[in-house]
Amino acid sequence: MNRDELIESVRSQMPAKRWEHTEGVMSTAVMLAKRFGGDPARAELAAILHDVCKYWPVEEQGRVIRENGLPQDLLEYDKELWHAHAGAWVARDRYGVGDEEVLDAIRYHTSGRENMTLLDKIVCLADYMEPGRDFPGVHNIRENAEHSLERALLAGFDGTIRFLLEKGKRIYPLTVMARNGLLLELQKQDAK
Amino acid sequence: MNRDELIESVRSQMPAKRWEHTEGVMSTAVMLAKRFGGDPARAELAAILHDVCKYWPVEEQGRVIRENGLPQDLLEYDKELWHAHAGAWVARDRYGVGDEEVLDAIRYHTSGRENMTLLDKIVCLADYMEPGRDFPGVHNIRENAEHSLERALLAGFDGTIRFLLEKGKRIYPLTVMARNGLLLELQKQDAK
Repeated sequence: MNRDELIESVRSQMPAKRWEHTEGVMSTAVMLAKRFGGDPARAELAAILHDVCKYWPVEEQGRVIRENGLPQDLLEYDKELWHAHAGAWVARDRYGVGDEEVLDAIRYHTSGRENMTLLDKIVCLADYMEPGRDFPGVHNIRENAEHSLERALLAGFDGTIRFLLEKGKRIYPLTVMARNGLLLELQKQDAK
Repeated sequence: MNRDELIESVRSQMPAKRWEHTEGVMSTAVMLAKRFGGDPARAELAAILHDVCKYWPVEEQGRVIRENGLPQDLLEYDKELWHAHAGAWVARDRYGVGDEEVLDAIRYHTSGRENMTLLDKIVCLADYMEPGRDFPGVHNIRENAEHSLERALLAGFDGTIRFLLEKGKRIYPLTVMARNGLLLELQKQDAK
């Protein structure tokens, strides 16, 4: 399957509005990869596929998680987290993506994780700040992204955690660990 | 060692101001135990000992954690967390406390944990709201504590997490898991 066929297949699984978002994530991920020394082609591939399952029925996303040994604790958390892990499985199983870093970037694009790779950070940040995004704090994220991938992503996670506190919703522990990891990285960068 | 001897021994290890705090936690823990069906005597015992190590040199607290197989990840987190785990070890090793629930209540009084026991909640909440405490949000915690241990403690953890976000400090994942556990408990209570 070439790039155009992949795009067509993914596009057919979501509403037009969500495909616009995916295009925004693709271009932003490519831009961030160029800015911060990542691989634009792998960033784009992860971006194309990152929301492939987002508009599948949640029961179907849950079935993928249950039946393929994906982390079962996800099923107890917000359904927003499911499509990322299910999406990584689909990327490998249905689209033959074998690049583990690309699969990880899809898998952790919503939650983040401890010790995020460069590609994880690029895709996760692109998802926060693509041009179609409009939420309190998005300008701050974009400003930080001019010079620091880590600071921009930290601003994104801080916003997500604040949002969940305000809404009285649970916080996925991996997001806190992702934020902790970024703080340590920034400390080390500042110490240089 | 009787109650008075224990109190005298613990008191001698901290400044007078901190002992006043401990007395506040003792009376508040007893009050909360009576209000929410806990055991006042065990609540008071945990309260007496909860800060026993708080004014030990941090190197000494760290040594207790390193040399006695306590969770090593603590050493990478805020030193504020150390005295609780070191304190539980001291309570057992030096004061002969064998009651596992009392030891857990000391151990988790700062961080909380997933699936907190009634005694964990009482001691942790008493530490947040004893009469000497004065910080933004403490009135809200006390108001909630009139009727719900879980809602009051949730307000406490929410405040702690917000504080750490503002300060750009790391959040101990167990605190997030404690908060998640309380939200699930409250959901179940509301569903009844």
